[in-house]
Amino acid sequence: MRKDERALISQIASIIGERCDDDCAIIPSPFFSLDSPSGSSKDLVVSTDMLHETTDFPKGMSDWQIGWMSAAVTLSDLAAMGSLPLYLLLAIGADDPSRVKDIVRGAYECCMRYGVRYIGGDLDTHRECTVVSTGIGEVACGCAVQRSGAGIGDRIGIVGIPGRAEAGLFGCFEFLIHLLEPQPRVAEGQALLRAGATAMMDISDGLMISLFDLAKASSVCCMIDLDAIPVFSSNSLSQEQCRDFAWYGGGDFGLLFTIPPSHIEKIEGIDTDEIFLIGEVCAGEGVVSSLGSLIPIRGYSHF
Amino acid sequence: MRKDERALISQIASIIGERCDDDCAIIPSPFFSLDSPSGSSKDLVVSTDMLHETTDFPKGMSDWQIGWMSAAVTLSDLAAMGSLPLYLLLAIGADDPSRVKDIVRGAYECCMRYGVRYIGGDLDTHRECTVVSTGIGEVACGCAVQRSGAGIGDRIGIVGIPGRAEAGLFGCFEFLIHLLEPQPRVAEGQALLRAGATAMMDISDGLMISLFDLAKASSVCCMIDLDAIPVFSSNSLSQEQCRDFAWYGGGDFGLLFTIPPSHIEKIEGIDTDEIFLIGEVCAGEGVVSSLGSLIPIRGYSHF
Repeated sequence: MRKDERALISQIASIIGERCDDDCAIIPSPFFSLDSPSGSSKDLVVSTDMLHETTDFPKGMSDWQIGWMSAAVTLSDLAAMGSLPLYLLLAIGADDPSRVKDIVRGAYECCMRYGVRYIGGDLDTHRECTVVSTGIGEVACGCAVQRSGAGIGDRIGIVGIPGRAEAGLFGCFEFLIHLLEPQPRVAEGQALLRAGATAMMDISDGLMISLFDLAKASSVCCMIDLDAIPVFSSNSLSQEQCRDFAWYGGGDFGLLFTIPPSHIEKIEGIDTDEIFLIGEVCAGEGVVSSLGSLIPIRGYSHF
Repeated sequence: MRKDERALISQIASIIGERCDDDCAIIPSPFFSLDSPSGSSKDLVVSTDMLHETTDFPKGMSDWQIGWMSAAVTLSDLAAMGSLPLYLLLAIGADDPSRVKDIVRGAYECCMRYGVRYIGGDLDTHRECTVVSTGIGEVACGCAVQRSGAGIGDRIGIVGIPGRAEAGLFGCFEFLIHLLEPQPRVAEGQALLRAGATAMMDISDGLMISLFDLAKASSVCCMIDLDAIPVFSSNSLSQEQCRDFAWYGGGDFGLLFTIPPSHIEKIEGIDTDEIFLIGEVCAGEGVVSSLGSLIPIRGYSHF
């Protein structure tokens, strides 16, 4: 099914005449600056995300958390380009108007946490609660970090320990907060841009599927040292289950990035226990383990 | 119910600390220009709209038309601020992936018609086909025409003959095209801005409800010469029905504006048979007929 979704995105890209590799669109605007009175050159980065009850809001999620997540998912996309998120719009289709206030509050508090201005949106009734957030960020002209920039020889890294959101969804209450109140990696994305990351994306669809997507967008192969992927531990899960969640689980807002080896020491402002180097970019395609075995594609698909 | 919706919007406005009178948010950015290499000062205007099958896509509407309308509704909001629409994003929640291609084509062709770049979006499955479009436009710094700018003594005008989309929905096939393929008034919005319009909005929720909204946002009263409101005619409808559709029907993408009397002759670039002066702004509140009677509030409400 994943294949179908990628095929559909390719079709859309060919109709609208745009590349659709990334979760954000870049508007190159050399004369644009939203925050700097000096008028320094900035590009605009824009992203939109649709979330709805059936597939995106786990049972038990509060309306405040629905709002938080709706904002967070878009800020995460903006963060993964290395941009500074600035503005957010929220279109809310509510099955019950009494839910709107808490959804707005959750989104607003997420915006506040990350210095983003929640500037408006749209309001609608919907049989199924549906929220679409659109974010606008800015990044130094020509510097947005895309999925397609990975170069052979780059190291592959991730920010954050993956899999805990999925473990929360599986019923491990100690990890529920990762699922319900994800934290976009806004400062980390900008730190990686400054350090010279060549490609970046968030891993909200799962680490392995994200590696595949990055490999495809960059026309390279991701060679992964599987033992280097950090795995959380839990009393209520087997080690194998934890590893499975770490490799394939969705919902975490960690970042996946590539960076030339000489730039690794330039990474500043990210806790060292939050950053993990897990592999290397090489010629070829897809994702392989450093022991040579192919890694099967698995992860979140909308279709 | 309309009252509930306005109350909800007021609550949202107080939570996020923004005025929410208009269908667009304005990002004042004195150093910003998307299209002009001279770097002249421009504000950014952003709007997002949620549409879905049950309430927004009439039966018999094709997927291409769903795409067209989704883009058009947002371009109309941008037009109603007098802005130049530049970019569009589309988040599509499709009940069947085979529908996506034609929805994208419709939106793309609407964008092309109005010189707008369709730069990306999001793709999702949804039990009910749901499309959220987000548009970005630009306008000369500080010049966006809002609902709140009407001044006492201004004349009230509309662009376009209202009510035909509603007549189409009612079953008058000759007007179906107004319902299914609405034309945002992009050039007209800019022409009215240039002429010095003080307040503007589109009338997609219906003419009378729009007059109420404009009056409220500007803290004025709209005094309307009811006989000056243009009414279309139809063999299959009584004159009274036509008048009712013209006054209260939704779905038309005409513009409602106010303008000082001395600026009316500065309006250039709009066909004279498309522009109608229907009243005057005076002190007070609500909408009254020039014969002194109160006009009841009626029109489209989401809740």
